[in-house]
Amino acid sequence: MSSTTYILAINCGSSSIKTKLYKIDDSGKRQPLTAVAEGSIKGIAAKGQKIKIKLEWLDGSGHDVSEQGELGDQVDYQTLPPLLLKKFTSSSKGIKDEQIKYISHRIVHGGPHKEPIIITREHEEGLTEMDTLSEFAPLHNHSAVLAIRSCLKALPEHTSLLAFDTLFHQTLPEEVYTYAIPKADQEVPIPLRKYGFHGLSYRSILQSIATKSGKQTKDVSIVVAHLGSGGSCCMIRNGESQDTTMGLTPLEGLVGGTRSGTIDPTLVFHLVERCGEDAGLDGIKVTRAEATLNKKSGLTALAGTNDFNSITTKMLNPSSYDAEDAKASTLAYKVYTDRLLCYLTFYLGKLFETEGIDGIDGLVFSGGIGEKSVFLRQDVSKRLGWMGFQVDDKLNEQASAGKEVAVKINAEASKIPIWVVQTDEEEVCAKMVQEYFDL
Amino acid sequence: MSSTTYILAINCGSSSIKTKLYKIDDSGKRQPLTAVAEGSIKGIAAKGQKIKIKLEWLDGSGHDVSEQGELGDQVDYQTLPPLLLKKFTSSSKGIKDEQIKYISHRIVHGGPHKEPIIITREHEEGLTEMDTLSEFAPLHNHSAVLAIRSCLKALPEHTSLLAFDTLFHQTLPEEVYTYAIPKADQEVPIPLRKYGFHGLSYRSILQSIATKSGKQTKDVSIVVAHLGSGGSCCMIRNGESQDTTMGLTPLEGLVGGTRSGTIDPTLVFHLVERCGEDAGLDGIKVTRAEATLNKKSGLTALAGTNDFNSITTKMLNPSSYDAEDAKASTLAYKVYTDRLLCYLTFYLGKLFETEGIDGIDGLVFSGGIGEKSVFLRQDVSKRLGWMGFQVDDKLNEQASAGKEVAVKINAEASKIPIWVVQTDEEEVCAKMVQEYFDL
Repeated sequence: MSSTTYILAINCGSSSIKTKLYKIDDSGKRQPLTAVAEGSIKGIAAKGQKIKIKLEWLDGSGHDVSEQGELGDQVDYQTLPPLLLKKFTSSSKGIKDEQIKYISHRIVHGGPHKEPIIITREHEEGLTEMDTLSEFAPLHNHSAVLAIRSCLKALPEHTSLLAFDTLFHQTLPEEVYTYAIPKADQEVPIPLRKYGFHGLSYRSILQSIATKSGKQTKDVSIVVAHLGSGGSCCMIRNGESQDTTMGLTPLEGLVGGTRSGTIDPTLVFHLVERCGEDAGLDGIKVTRAEATLNKKSGLTALAGTNDFNSITTKMLNPSSYDAEDAKASTLAYKVYTDRLLCYLTFYLGKLFETEGIDGIDGLVFSGGIGEKSVFLRQDVSKRLGWMGFQVDDKLNEQASAGKEVAVKINAEASKIPIWVVQTDEEEVCAKMVQEYFDL
Repeated sequence: MSSTTYILAINCGSSSIKTKLYKIDDSGKRQPLTAVAEGSIKGIAAKGQKIKIKLEWLDGSGHDVSEQGELGDQVDYQTLPPLLLKKFTSSSKGIKDEQIKYISHRIVHGGPHKEPIIITREHEEGLTEMDTLSEFAPLHNHSAVLAIRSCLKALPEHTSLLAFDTLFHQTLPEEVYTYAIPKADQEVPIPLRKYGFHGLSYRSILQSIATKSGKQTKDVSIVVAHLGSGGSCCMIRNGESQDTTMGLTPLEGLVGGTRSGTIDPTLVFHLVERCGEDAGLDGIKVTRAEATLNKKSGLTALAGTNDFNSITTKMLNPSSYDAEDAKASTLAYKVYTDRLLCYLTFYLGKLFETEGIDGIDGLVFSGGIGEKSVFLRQDVSKRLGWMGFQVDDKLNEQASAGKEVAVKINAEASKIPIWVVQTDEEEVCAKMVQEYFDL
């Protein structure tokens, strides 16, 4: 008797977990995956708020939202995944534990690994290495490792694949990933170079643009702005990452919700007292400096919030808000877009140089901010207008409301297409399992 | 009996001192200054090398080069300026101590000061403040303060003007100078913001382009690459600095001879052990991290030398050199120009946006590397070719050999002018005295 096999994709963020369950069509190899359910946990680490666990069946047969009795700051990434797993397997759908044969975990930092790592209950060695890398991705790796260990306990028979965000950037040219620094005077677990992140997202976006354009990914050249609570840009030439803004860690590059982005590399020595000392973050080797620049900076430091919609609303309607607040929001928006335009201009220029204007398949906005902020897309495209960009205001409005995975928002007269793409990191995670195990 | 008044400009670099003596034409106010002599000291801090003191009379009446008995690492910025002063006043020209009424000192970091500071023997308070700022310009401020103190002793009657490199960038927009960081958790002597440097050089270049173009400086819009052993770029719109690559300190931005330039802001915590501890540099509060990123990084870390000519020679004639050496030089050049192109593209884009292509008065190369490297200028202009730049190879060759202050090297067909400008920081220093004291 054949039994359906499922792949679960788990994406641990800095305060949430997103999961998606996929059914493998066993009528042949590499059949399209069917997403059957989506689950999420929100409010992790949030003080005084109860965490919310949500499950939705994608065939429309319903959803299940429950507020756990526990508060966000009483739970951790070790206790939560089993609760989610249970929701999938205890439902009326009859999905059994042993049918979830694969779990694909998004891992932010994979160091120099050029391939995903496979983990089973008997072979957990890779996890220790991933945890070592937590010091290079303080908001993420450690949480993911905790989640993986808890999944291995809850579903002892499954196989986990570690899908690294860094994999996509293995094609970066040497002059892009090299820093002008001497040899380290201490032992370092990985070479100190630019790794780049958001790779699963970039892969998802690249695939969507290729599909929409009727091209193969290897023929697609785009510049992508993935703007979420963490943001980065990527220049993809002929399907390969050729430059990206994040570096050794996700801190470099754009201003984030709580990240400073690129600043004078010695500023922090003047900002944070005893900045080289341990920050006392649970289980991770992170200095006070790194904690401040990753968790207390960015939009939050400038505007008091990392809610981008609130920031643009206050900027655009200053008279409805406290004057100081509106001013701070305006400055935050301007700082944010100034840095963004720096990288977009440079990356577009590099593509112009080698591919010509007709060889650029587009400028892509993605991530929470990129997919939702009508104003940011309009403003950024206008400020790049000298390059030939032109937004269609109506299409731009519709894009934020729409359900389509990838839509163009440029006017007919625009010399380069402008896209809004809904990225799907979980699908890329699941596909990596399919590819790796030749399913 | 009227007696000629002289202004001496002193420019303390990280391993050298440059000076120029100017005669004030007292036939009326703001007459052109006449440079009468040029002096330099080289080899400061160089181990085992004797320091060289050179004086040249610019009327062609001769020069005086002497090798001091002392070695470079036995002298300091306190002992040297009096030796130079003596050369000027003990010559057959009959210039007397009391005729050098003004000394204008280039100071790299002036913090938030919007005007030059005046120092006399009775009023030295400003010097303590300038020395405090040494922690923000570890290669420079402290040396300059030592030099000023020694001049005040040697010429007790003169008045010193502190000409800050930061002055020119007081026009930076708030969104450009603001970092997305929280309030410091310790006392800081100056606001933690982008200040920008090389301001005297940018002012000199701006003036040269204005003169050559028959415009007023307020009508000149240019993007400048000042590429010396420290390098930076500046976007000047209508005579005002609107963006620049260096930041709170001169470390941010481009790769330098020994500076890392912009890197992941947390990289140094993995590079340098006990990186927050004091580096033990004489008299300056600088951490081990700051010392490493300022003095042991950059081209030196990548190619083993900060001699740019040697780097390009090895890259262009690899078969004549050790293969590893040629490879390292090639990588150093590529890293250097990749970062340079990032800022040039962005700054040119900002000018395009507001001024249009016809409103850009040019891309300017200056500083030791910018004035000398034929290859870099040709390569960078070509890689910006998509914007409309086109170099004339013959003019480009001639520019490095020529004596002209500002020459165009673009082909007729180039949509934007390309300039090579010999910057003159000392002249700007002297002019600031003339303006300040209304001479």
